[in-house]
Amino acid sequence: MRIEIVAVGTELLLGQIADTNSAWLGEHLASAGVDSHFHQAVGDNQARIVLALRTALSRSDGVIVSGGLGPTQDDITRESIAEVMNVGLVRDESIIGRIVEMFQARQRAMPENNLRQADVPVGASIIEQTRGTAPGLICPLGNKVIYAVPGVPHEMREMFERGILPDLRRRMAELGEESVIKSRVVRTWGASESGLAEALDERVAELDRREAADGSTLTIAFLASGIEGIKVRLTARAQSEAAADAILADEEKRIRAIVNERLGDIVFGVDEESMEDAVAQLLVRRGLSLGLAESLTGGLIAARLVNVPGASVWMKGSVVAYDSAVKRRLLAVPPGPVVSAAAAEAMATGARAALGSDIGLGITGVAGPDEQDAEQPGTVYVGLVIRDAPPISLQLHLPGDRDRVRQYAAISALDLLRRSLLAQPS
Amino acid sequence: MRIEIVAVGTELLLGQIADTNSAWLGEHLASAGVDSHFHQAVGDNQARIVLALRTALSRSDGVIVSGGLGPTQDDITRESIAEVMNVGLVRDESIIGRIVEMFQARQRAMPENNLRQADVPVGASIIEQTRGTAPGLICPLGNKVIYAVPGVPHEMREMFERGILPDLRRRMAELGEESVIKSRVVRTWGASESGLAEALDERVAELDRREAADGSTLTIAFLASGIEGIKVRLTARAQSEAAADAILADEEKRIRAIVNERLGDIVFGVDEESMEDAVAQLLVRRGLSLGLAESLTGGLIAARLVNVPGASVWMKGSVVAYDSAVKRRLLAVPPGPVVSAAAAEAMATGARAALGSDIGLGITGVAGPDEQDAEQPGTVYVGLVIRDAPPISLQLHLPGDRDRVRQYAAISALDLLRRSLLAQPS
Repeated sequence: MRIEIVAVGTELLLGQIADTNSAWLGEHLASAGVDSHFHQAVGDNQARIVLALRTALSRSDGVIVSGGLGPTQDDITRESIAEVMNVGLVRDESIIGRIVEMFQARQRAMPENNLRQADVPVGASIIEQTRGTAPGLICPLGNKVIYAVPGVPHEMREMFERGILPDLRRRMAELGEESVIKSRVVRTWGASESGLAEALDERVAELDRREAADGSTLTIAFLASGIEGIKVRLTARAQSEAAADAILADEEKRIRAIVNERLGDIVFGVDEESMEDAVAQLLVRRGLSLGLAESLTGGLIAARLVNVPGASVWMKGSVVAYDSAVKRRLLAVPPGPVVSAAAAEAMATGARAALGSDIGLGITGVAGPDEQDAEQPGTVYVGLVIRDAPPISLQLHLPGDRDRVRQYAAISALDLLRRSLLAQPS
Repeated sequence: MRIEIVAVGTELLLGQIADTNSAWLGEHLASAGVDSHFHQAVGDNQARIVLALRTALSRSDGVIVSGGLGPTQDDITRESIAEVMNVGLVRDESIIGRIVEMFQARQRAMPENNLRQADVPVGASIIEQTRGTAPGLICPLGNKVIYAVPGVPHEMREMFERGILPDLRRRMAELGEESVIKSRVVRTWGASESGLAEALDERVAELDRREAADGSTLTIAFLASGIEGIKVRLTARAQSEAAADAILADEEKRIRAIVNERLGDIVFGVDEESMEDAVAQLLVRRGLSLGLAESLTGGLIAARLVNVPGASVWMKGSVVAYDSAVKRRLLAVPPGPVVSAAAAEAMATGARAALGSDIGLGITGVAGPDEQDAEQPGTVYVGLVIRDAPPISLQLHLPGDRDRVRQYAAISALDLLRRSLLAQPS
């Protein structure tokens, strides 16, 4: 099964936004065992959208088109698909009902042009809208198909999972094409890409040589994800989902063991598990609550942590002390330079007292571009105190501009907390 | 002049890296007055690269292809172009010399496969390599052209400026097509895309009808940017950069006036100006400092604000009071429900006192998924106090999941602050 991806929007051609939708769709089609040989981007022009769709259909079994389903005059994906299908558009009463409801729920008046979103090419079925106002479309053309989804990423993703993937799976089953490709991502923090590759070199070579008796395959790839660390992606192709899962589970165990022996405790999660998820799990397991004192990160660490569901159980809060006077007044940081190990430890202790938490985590440093307290941009101190134990601290030298220094500082502080919690008794 | 962009690389189709090259090329072609109606991405497969190039040539005057010029076996853009041109490849001695020199300069042994980078389709000229080992190619096909550049972004960009742009300008001059396209984005918060489109409907129609005497054009488009509001993009084509700028400045003024009259003060910035930039400018102009008290946003508002250069002048800090006990202790929020207008106002007042700022901004609400204080997820209260004036508050009903409710809450709170600062005397 081959599916081509077509992204609609003049802003893509003009480079005003990057086409992240096509990358996401490509990744998720590959996971489902669907080939995607071409992507196209095209502007908000009916003749050109029609040409792009016809070109795509001529070299694939189907097309996913994203964008151009909104309410305004330049949203013309519906009209373009109808032209390719050689049918008209009908206004669907049930869709109108849902759009009207959505505006009522938000207590806003509905501009008339929203009704365009209820237009459906004759013969197409819809993927009901649950987030935005525009539904998705499933448009059959003989034994081929055009799927249309909104360009807003979170709407597109949800409709792909709920509406497109099941329909693709059904079509593949009819063709007897059901091989399954599954991936698992092992996430690490604290090692370089080349260091990780070197540690796993032998295993990668072994997999390259291997020919599985049942035709299944397994590959390892390394992805540098900037501030989120280095990812090791395991990809298995097998006859069934269960068989692929078994291969991945086995390999994950092997990779963890090799990495742990060679590089220490650098694996913090799998797939979508973030560093804050890892910290949250450990806090719950140890029965400890957390309070923060943030200077250069300005609330970034707290904002990451409260996004974990159930955070209210262990998260007390954060004192974002951007101003030095606030550090002294609310956190009792003693006189002296505020970019120092002593200040970070005092902030941790002060956060624990002010917020009434078991653990205090303090972070101070220089985001740049100017130096502060005679310290260079990128110099960061993290302080940590758990219960009545003496505070500890860590000095870091982080690369990059203002924003990257902050992002690296936030994940580094969370990793220090994670490692310290691992060492605590349950 | 129409140029199509073709990006080569299986990793693009699999979504392992985002195609930032095409966005960059699209932007720079537009600035040079070159139309780009389609982008394609294709994998490392000769038959498919050939098909993509033929498709591109059939609907454009030329193609820029990026990627697939490296030394390894899966770098086959050279072979593909030769097939489309229906010519052979010749190994260019001068290129070999440069590659050998580069390896010598880095004191590294040269793997034999690097010589493949010296292969040039018969009839093509080269864009000399100055950064990587592969040269670019300029390949004429009748009056059309294929430009090939490496996929490494900084090599691609440098070759575009040095080798492709001058060749394109020469071709456009021959066709008498020298024009400039420039864009300006007017950013709004608080109106729906459809509401904004309706307000500007007449102006859009007027521009559609208009035939400028000097051949210049001006178009308006709407971009929904989720939590960053709705953008209105003005695009002008003119004979010179100065003429395009003048058209855009004039139209920006007109659009601001129409929008202001119909929808109020919803324009907060232009191009890359964010909501926090707008707030920061007003704080500096009014000479006021800011302290925050954040509950459901968990530090998100502070983290956005401290990213503005110079924030230390006006930013005192934030009390992230996730736990109700912290709200009472550090912010003196009185007994009663913490998701309420009274609590938001008390938080604003408490932040001002605790952080020693001129302004206090407090935000509380329910991110979900569960309700709290008998309030539904998405219910948010923002409290604001400026100096000794009585506190004000705003109730919001925000859509989406936990993360989106937070993001919307953060920008809504910043917008309330912006509007209130606009109303303050300088």
